Amino acid sequence: MKGISDLTYDSSGLIPAIIQDADTGEVLMMAYMNEQSLAETIRTRRTHFWSRSRKKYWMKGESSGHVQDVVGIFVDCDQDTLLIKVKQEGAACHKGYRTCFFRQRQDDGEWAVIAERLFDPEAVYGKK
Amino acid sequence: MKGISDLTYDSSGLIPAIIQDADTGEVLMMAYMNEQSLAETIRTRRTHFWSRSRKKYWMKGESSGHVQDVVGIFVDCDQDTLLIKVKQEGAACHKGYRTCFFRQRQDDGEWAVIAERLFDPEAVYGKK
Repeated sequence: MKGISDLTYDSSGLIPAIIQDADTGEVLMMAYMNEQSLAETIRTRRTHFWSRSRKKYWMKGESSGHVQDVVGIFVDCDQDTLLIKVKQEGAACHKGYRTCFFRQRQDDGEWAVIAERLFDPEAVYGKK
Repeated sequence: MKGISDLTYDSSGLIPAIIQDADTGEVLMMAYMNEQSLAETIRTRRTHFWSRSRKKYWMKGESSGHVQDVVGIFVDCDQDTLLIKVKQEGAACHKGYRTCFFRQRQDDGEWAVIAERLFDPEAVYGKK
């Protein structure tokens, strides 16, 4: 697919993709794509990633219904990082928060939860 | 330093840090920190990174004056990505743009420049 083979993928064939809420500007998550999942993201206009831990393709929202509709795809100066603006259905984080960045460092060094939980992960993904 | 040794660094000891403009929400850049550059970022309240290509520490703005004053540091659910909100002096991108993500994918596959250049890189960094 034109333009996506020119990107700089790492030694595992991956490129990080920052996912940002197109409406609010909130950074929702970061995950990794390879050339095939990026092509699938472009084709379907829904974000697809490569899971490094599970070693498989996944579409964001395939289990939860919390899909991401792609609004725009941007690349950085070094062509080794993507920024994808999306319309987020529901919540991006599998822990039940709108964004995966729901903890902020405090002056005492603690990571404090600063967001409200929108859903119960067990109700959406089932018990582990 | 409390809380930063709990993060998940990759096999090279690095963690990606997404840098976001605290005022506008614009994603400015992504770069890599190790535990020492993160500690230095916290201590000085200015962003410090580890350059994978040059294998050295660098403070953003050390050459250009385009420093980033840290407003907040956030961590994601997997503790392997940071989001840092900053006040950006000047422009984040060494190519002269406010953000490194100055190119957007078009339907024909081209990466089109969609931002205005704020400075001439040669005037700031010298000729290469």
